[in-house]
Amino acid sequence: MLSEFDLIKEYFQRPRHPVRASLGIGDDCALLTPGAGMQTAISSDMLVEGRHFFAGEDAYRLGHKSLAVNLSDLAAMGARPVGFTLALALPAAERSWLDGFSRGLFDLADAFNIELIGGDTTKGPLTICITVFGELAPDSALRRSAAQVDDDLWISGTLGDARLALAGYRHEVALDAASLQAAAVRMHLPVPRVELGMLLAQQRIAHAAIDISDGLVGDLGHILAQSGVGATLDVDALPAGAVLATRETALRRAYTAAGGDDYELCFTAPASARSAILAAAASVATPVSRVGRIDAASGLRLCDASGAPLDLALQGFDHFTS
Amino acid sequence: MLSEFDLIKEYFQRPRHPVRASLGIGDDCALLTPGAGMQTAISSDMLVEGRHFFAGEDAYRLGHKSLAVNLSDLAAMGARPVGFTLALALPAAERSWLDGFSRGLFDLADAFNIELIGGDTTKGPLTICITVFGELAPDSALRRSAAQVDDDLWISGTLGDARLALAGYRHEVALDAASLQAAAVRMHLPVPRVELGMLLAQQRIAHAAIDISDGLVGDLGHILAQSGVGATLDVDALPAGAVLATRETALRRAYTAAGGDDYELCFTAPASARSAILAAAASVATPVSRVGRIDAASGLRLCDASGAPLDLALQGFDHFTS
Repeated sequence: MLSEFDLIKEYFQRPRHPVRASLGIGDDCALLTPGAGMQTAISSDMLVEGRHFFAGEDAYRLGHKSLAVNLSDLAAMGARPVGFTLALALPAAERSWLDGFSRGLFDLADAFNIELIGGDTTKGPLTICITVFGELAPDSALRRSAAQVDDDLWISGTLGDARLALAGYRHEVALDAASLQAAAVRMHLPVPRVELGMLLAQQRIAHAAIDISDGLVGDLGHILAQSGVGATLDVDALPAGAVLATRETALRRAYTAAGGDDYELCFTAPASARSAILAAAASVATPVSRVGRIDAASGLRLCDASGAPLDLALQGFDHFTS
Repeated sequence: MLSEFDLIKEYFQRPRHPVRASLGIGDDCALLTPGAGMQTAISSDMLVEGRHFFAGEDAYRLGHKSLAVNLSDLAAMGARPVGFTLALALPAAERSWLDGFSRGLFDLADAFNIELIGGDTTKGPLTICITVFGELAPDSALRRSAAQVDDDLWISGTLGDARLALAGYRHEVALDAASLQAAAVRMHLPVPRVELGMLLAQQRIAHAAIDISDGLVGDLGHILAQSGVGATLDVDALPAGAVLATRETALRRAYTAAGGDDYELCFTAPASARSAILAAAASVATPVSRVGRIDAASGLRLCDASGAPLDLALQGFDHFTS
């Protein structure tokens, strides 16, 4: 039987990358040497089987997604990813699962040149807790509290296909197999907008940012609350995912505005930064869309393409009330 | 019903401490500003109900222990604790549980003047993942790989009472109620040896160190393997916990040498450092005992008080094979 230490050695210990970790897996702590004068950005997410992913989820995709959702938090801060820890509870140490999971994890880690620097493994209900570390220059972080009145409201990429796939799996929405498969890529293999977030912070062209994980309306609500502002959102300007874009207006509005699992960035920036934002986004091949503006009046106002108010019954996802 | 955001606000968000966290709970990431030229030590532990603690465990004790086991890893590195993140999966958001857990957590955090800087909450089987951050001067870390031949082998505090309490709960060993209660304090409310670890590192008087969580023999084995050395351990010199000390020799030997859940430090240091170590330990009111020595010959030799070899069938705890 695979022991805890063999498991770590075989699947999670790799030759050292030339990054900022002076000491990785195998001691009581990892040691990280921050760049001179840099701040460390830290985010921690826990994924629970049956809650954040289906029982029996493909291990490769799960490895990818577990790291991706954490990198998305770094992206929303504008930090450069450096490394991460992994705490893993597993019902059993199964080689095929470990092989897939570790490949999914490290393929994404390699894409961003970051290192697994430590963690923990234990027996238990399948639960994945990743804590990710990034660095950024002091005062460059994209904070939720930094939105200003008259800022434009921007969204990266497209929204709603992950939610559409979930609806397809749950048979809440009829989807043919090809459409489900296409939409499900967004659910299973989200790509964190790390490069865009870094540029927005480094070039100091954005004010506030958040990553969209619980649905745009709910997540944008955190920016509004923490910045003490309101916003008007053109729901019909929201960029729908390729599959969702083919569906009826009501579904498109609902899933772009409050789908969840999108892992796109929502950010605010002054109108004077429009061309700089478009250039930055183009330089990292990330589409961005202007979808509204920040208002002095508190609250979020939804409107359609003509500017008429929309009254959608939407809410963000809450783990304890839903 | 208590929402995820209310839960965080009510139980885990506190007025900012004047520590190194520039931005705590409530944004996509926490921001930590390391001291100039300092390294960051990072450790992550996951505690699963039914595995690391009994179902129905008292919430206050669980809050304490969850943080204590992580601080013990910082202690074993010699790092000064700075802050931590908490990822928490809970079957339900129960106020009485959250109140007890957060009090246990913050009472210990306050004792070390550290701050909860971020995390995650979700519904799921009760699972607690804490990632803790400390800082230390470059090249001062107490590494597992640093033991040298002829080093003394030292243990802080006492060993085995936590294991004795577990045996009492499991009815493997007959314990009267008072003894069980006394021993159980070590199981439920371990005190991480942070001050001792920091002194050993800062004064550069110890070579290698590890914290004893899976049983001394198993944990010491990591030092030996990573340092490429062996050791001779005087099992009868191992300091037994107050309750275990009253029990028969065989039980005392087994539970001091391979009990687990001790959260004491095992460290090595040259004989020339003996008086400095005793002075450092006395200055932080932490007993230390010299229990063996590091040898060039690989392997761990156990002996009794007379120096005669002991053949105990011991093994460290492994989460996937036990």
